[in-house]
Amino acid sequence: VRVPRIPSVLLATVLLGCAALAAEGMWMPQQIPDLKARLEGAGFKGDPRTFADLTGHPMGAVVSLGGCSASFVSPEGLIVTNQHCVTGALQYNSTPERNLLKNGYLARTREEELWAGPGSRAYVTLSFKDVTEEITGNLDPKLDDRARFETIERRTKERVKACEKDGLRCRVASFFEGYRHYEIAQMEIQDVRLVYTPAEGIGSFGGETDNWRWPRHTGDFGFYRAYVSKDGKPAAFSKDNVPYRPKHWLKADPKGVEPGDVVFVTGYPGATRRMETYAAVKQMAEWTLPRQIKRSEEQLAILEQLSKDDPALKLKVSNRIRGLNNGLTNNRGKLKGLLQANLLATKEANEKALTAWIEADSKRKKEFGDALPALNAQTAEEIRTRERDSALRSVTAGSALLGAARTIYRLSLERAKPDLDREPEYQERNWKRIRERDERGQKTLDLVADRALFRYALLEAARLPSGARIEPLDAAAGISAGMSEADAGRAIDAFLDRLYAGTKLDDLALRQSLLEKPAADVVATKDSFIDLAVKLYPATEEIEERQKRNEGLRSRLTPTYVRALLQFSGGALAPDANGTLRVTFGKVEGVAERDGLVYLPQTSLAGILEKHTGTGEFDAPKHELDAIAAVRAGKKTPYASPGLGDVPVNFLASVDTTGGNSGSPALSSKGELVGLLFDGTFDTVGSDIVFDPVRTRSILVDIRYVLWLMTDVDAASHLLAEMGVSPRS
Amino acid sequence: VRVPRIPSVLLATVLLGCAALAAEGMWMPQQIPDLKARLEGAGFKGDPRTFADLTGHPMGAVVSLGGCSASFVSPEGLIVTNQHCVTGALQYNSTPERNLLKNGYLARTREEELWAGPGSRAYVTLSFKDVTEEITGNLDPKLDDRARFETIERRTKERVKACEKDGLRCRVASFFEGYRHYEIAQMEIQDVRLVYTPAEGIGSFGGETDNWRWPRHTGDFGFYRAYVSKDGKPAAFSKDNVPYRPKHWLKADPKGVEPGDVVFVTGYPGATRRMETYAAVKQMAEWTLPRQIKRSEEQLAILEQLSKDDPALKLKVSNRIRGLNNGLTNNRGKLKGLLQANLLATKEANEKALTAWIEADSKRKKEFGDALPALNAQTAEEIRTRERDSALRSVTAGSALLGAARTIYRLSLERAKPDLDREPEYQERNWKRIRERDERGQKTLDLVADRALFRYALLEAARLPSGARIEPLDAAAGISAGMSEADAGRAIDAFLDRLYAGTKLDDLALRQSLLEKPAADVVATKDSFIDLAVKLYPATEEIEERQKRNEGLRSRLTPTYVRALLQFSGGALAPDANGTLRVTFGKVEGVAERDGLVYLPQTSLAGILEKHTGTGEFDAPKHELDAIAAVRAGKKTPYASPGLGDVPVNFLASVDTTGGNSGSPALSSKGELVGLLFDGTFDTVGSDIVFDPVRTRSILVDIRYVLWLMTDVDAASHLLAEMGVSPRS
Repeated sequence: VRVPRIPSVLLATVLLGCAALAAEGMWMPQQIPDLKARLEGAGFKGDPRTFADLTGHPMGAVVSLGGCSASFVSPEGLIVTNQHCVTGALQYNSTPERNLLKNGYLARTREEELWAGPGSRAYVTLSFKDVTEEITGNLDPKLDDRARFETIERRTKERVKACEKDGLRCRVASFFEGYRHYEIAQMEIQDVRLVYTPAEGIGSFGGETDNWRWPRHTGDFGFYRAYVSKDGKPAAFSKDNVPYRPKHWLKADPKGVEPGDVVFVTGYPGATRRMETYAAVKQMAEWTLPRQIKRSEEQLAILEQLSKDDPALKLKVSNRIRGLNNGLTNNRGKLKGLLQANLLATKEANEKALTAWIEADSKRKKEFGDALPALNAQTAEEIRTRERDSALRSVTAGSALLGAARTIYRLSLERAKPDLDREPEYQERNWKRIRERDERGQKTLDLVADRALFRYALLEAARLPSGARIEPLDAAAGISAGMSEADAGRAIDAFLDRLYAGTKLDDLALRQSLLEKPAADVVATKDSFIDLAVKLYPATEEIEERQKRNEGLRSRLTPTYVRALLQFSGGALAPDANGTLRVTFGKVEGVAERDGLVYLPQTSLAGILEKHTGTGEFDAPKHELDAIAAVRAGKKTPYASPGLGDVPVNFLASVDTTGGNSGSPALSSKGELVGLLFDGTFDTVGSDIVFDPVRTRSILVDIRYVLWLMTDVDAASHLLAEMGVSPRS
Repeated sequence: VRVPRIPSVLLATVLLGCAALAAEGMWMPQQIPDLKARLEGAGFKGDPRTFADLTGHPMGAVVSLGGCSASFVSPEGLIVTNQHCVTGALQYNSTPERNLLKNGYLARTREEELWAGPGSRAYVTLSFKDVTEEITGNLDPKLDDRARFETIERRTKERVKACEKDGLRCRVASFFEGYRHYEIAQMEIQDVRLVYTPAEGIGSFGGETDNWRWPRHTGDFGFYRAYVSKDGKPAAFSKDNVPYRPKHWLKADPKGVEPGDVVFVTGYPGATRRMETYAAVKQMAEWTLPRQIKRSEEQLAILEQLSKDDPALKLKVSNRIRGLNNGLTNNRGKLKGLLQANLLATKEANEKALTAWIEADSKRKKEFGDALPALNAQTAEEIRTRERDSALRSVTAGSALLGAARTIYRLSLERAKPDLDREPEYQERNWKRIRERDERGQKTLDLVADRALFRYALLEAARLPSGARIEPLDAAAGISAGMSEADAGRAIDAFLDRLYAGTKLDDLALRQSLLEKPAADVVATKDSFIDLAVKLYPATEEIEERQKRNEGLRSRLTPTYVRALLQFSGGALAPDANGTLRVTFGKVEGVAERDGLVYLPQTSLAGILEKHTGTGEFDAPKHELDAIAAVRAGKKTPYASPGLGDVPVNFLASVDTTGGNSGSPALSSKGELVGLLFDGTFDTVGSDIVFDPVRTRSILVDIRYVLWLMTDVDAASHLLAEMGVSPRS
């Protein structure tokens, strides 16, 4: 399958006159052979065609964990990813008495490997097929936007149904904003177990202070093992399951990579928005990001206040706090990139140039001239209702109990339909994961925290101006436009008293049983949260309908916009990230980060001592400090970098990654595992929207730090042996 | 005068095996000629003997502002220093309607130059004379410590009296911990006026966030002018005064300095404590610094809470907030240096080596063996009473009104004595500055803030354990050991109600009149704060007596300790800073600041745009942004650095400076003005206690930034002309 060569209008403008830049490109594996010249320029000496074979080496070893990336590193299904990708499993297996989050975990035997909990998965990509014609070919031009959406969605559901057979999970994914569609089949391994993760003082060393920052000294890695039934098929967690034997696994290279070396990072980047219009990016900078930042700050303050003297609650909300903090810093970085690093201005200039180019030629004007104005009109329309839409989304996402009630009610409605008529999310293929998600949620459910966050969302809805009210919520909560903050607070408190007194949805067994019931039975429970979900249903459905119309409209317009971008300039272009398997490459290299400041490409054990305070986020465990002291006192280790004269801890690489890439293996020119991607620098995150070729850098754990910890700190020699790494190599 | 060549035991240990290090040394000007070889190694081509002549060029141009350093830059008495050294003058001349702190100030004519306010001074050092023999020679060995102190103090007072004649201010300063004494005579210029300072968005750009940090982009400079009477003598502020005509002034070099160039920094560093014993440094790290950090944090929280919605109060307390923040960061840096950068461990190792060396030889043992144990015993003694002593000092410093009452009462007691019997601080030569300090205090006096901070100090005293109580305070405030925080708070609030209702000391005229009254009249006012000062007097006097005994003891022991240090190793050594004129030299150079992070030696205008947010601490004025845009659009400026391709803003230099050096001129190898010192990096401040030769860097404003602002932003061409800088040079 050949992927179209699409030029990057952004790169063309930004790259002029600059040297040694990060190159945009979360490439589809099939695109890599076409990049031979670039790869050779970067110092790659292998055969780029190996990357195009998804079931060969090394791509066959790369897996998705659903939100994180990972890779097989032994013939017995051992998987390596980030520590922060296994925190759900750590939390699931923790109690206040046995805090795996804090202490880490090392299974000495297979028996000690701990099930990662409901919903934990590993996905191995098996095939990838262009189905553009099947999805968007022969569409009746007379269809209105809503019907157009419906047709595309139905064709997609039919293809998925035809594709999925035992253990296979399929998806039809849109690339280049609907310009192309691909059908992807994955094996879905359902029994995933926790094998090893270092202590928090290693795996999260630096905490939120260092998150998105450099210099970095985080041992952000963890090991899982994939299990399957005895006949080698994906199966639910069972004591009888056996380790999965992958066809391909990565070999760790104890020599690692050094500055200037080329590295490949393969994984499942989640989403970038580089093909958005200027109007959409502008509204992101002016409204969406500032609002999200404010919400995260205020929600964090609520959670931190609530949990500060309550260790049990702290354990329950720690993942949420980590997620909020992470998103907050990410959004701040995006906003800073758009405004201070002038990415927004770059976008505007590029779009003006594109428009001028279209206007300059009557044929182009005819072909492309309508797309951008129509997309801008749609953005203007979204802006008109954004306050209310956003407040309603906040309310429905504001309480885990309301979320559960909505899911229960919606599933009961959808179950009554034929499967192909159901909303994709509620098709039978997803019922099991709905139940698992509900079950997993029980570990983090806390009614005090739930109520505090829900109150925050309700207060936001209470502030909406008249004309933009959420009427059913007003009626239920007794709030109205123009109410004083104090009056609204009192009304909401009374409403919350009634809600939390009138619900039993904190009972897992009850929720799980309701997930099987028809709508009449669900409504008959008269549970207060289900009652609220029913009342809000028409309002959320109205938003959904609008979204479907909009998507229908975009499915007409954006492929035209993308084609205009293509013709406007030349060179290969990677599609925006969409959660599918990608390859990016670059070099191990530092960056002139800011005026007066340089980030070196590597950090070392010495820096852990520099940062260690013995408390809070900088609290390396004593056994690690002792091991570092031994190295500094002259103890030989095969994992030292000759250039550094120390064991490398983290390194920077000029690769193009985003959320979802966490845990991605970094491969050397030889195709061996040399690092694990776990973060980007603060000044990189703006690249999710408009690529910054100057400062974009990803942060990776050096494989030598992992191997050194396994050898000298955590005594995980049985895993090293399994990985084929000899301590003397 | 030759200064002894004293080796640095610290350097000897720390420097081993390292390249390109900052060199310890706030040299006495007289020591510079002896450093010829070092200077030539650093690239200096001039004659080092010029530095030894305090009344020649360039040292004759360097002045003290009392707490800050500065230099003459024109034949008409124009002085350049830091913006943060003239904030007192800005505050004195500001009103809520005319905020000079925020807007800066530029006098277009001599008439517009604003008196800097009571107590503002410029001191020109005229002579420097070894008086060791006169001060500590022929001391009767039978004198006890208290009498020894008394004798040294009286000899000092007598010398000062003999030295001071019209307009001269003299001081006998101890160098090398009492090993040497020098008499210093300075001309005291009393009429100092504000000429020019840029807007806060330039002069304090980066605010507290960037304070002690790199990369830095602060235009921290300001201009004063010295005025004298028509006959050229120092005189109080008067319209009839005329600009002072210094014999020497510095010439600004529009070419500045570039990385690798040698720079000299001359000024008045206040205090370093590099010759303290390990026990004293240890107690600093374990107790003093953590306690000061906590106090500053809590006092800041109080002031910020009080002033956040009150612009008038904010103006009054802004200097105090700035000072607290500055000290807080400094103390945090010191603590970090001592603990994390291992400076405390270095000190310990060095002292152990010194002790072993003394013990190894019976002659040395006899000569030096007793000093360190005796000093350690004294430190142990101070530790015994530190809680109470510190709390009492907090209380007496806790309220400006109590401070005024103490001064009034003490002055009334001292006035009754012959002048040579008075406490030095209360001798007649200081009466004027006592009155001026009191007058200056009126601008920042606010009873709400005063009461809040005093309450904080009283609560601290209330928490003292029994056996360490401040009895007169207990009796007055109705507090006692073991009281609950709430009970103590109530008692203190009632006490404060009485105190603030019973005082008129917020009246400047009243205070100034009381500063002239005998003790009986002072006590007869029955003012509540004076009453409290009288009650606390015996307790404060008791501490003072102990201190005098201790100083007598130290005057016996520390010269011995210093002599031991001398003999233990070789090479020249500079004495600890003591507020006297010093010279330090080093290079314009960056630093490998932390594992993975490099500070480049210069910043540029581009970095201002990177940091500018348009609000708060990063709010460059529009006229500067426009001027930067013009430079970036290609406008030629003679102030660009060829290496940077931009106007340099700040630079780093490996010189050895501390508080008091603020405003110090940096001189090129040609002796021309190339920068103004205004800060050190966060990892440098630990060097005040134990010198860190690896990371010590000072931060300076590049003179080219100053000249560029004067040319392209603030239209101060009349000052440029006066300084002899032609815009085309």
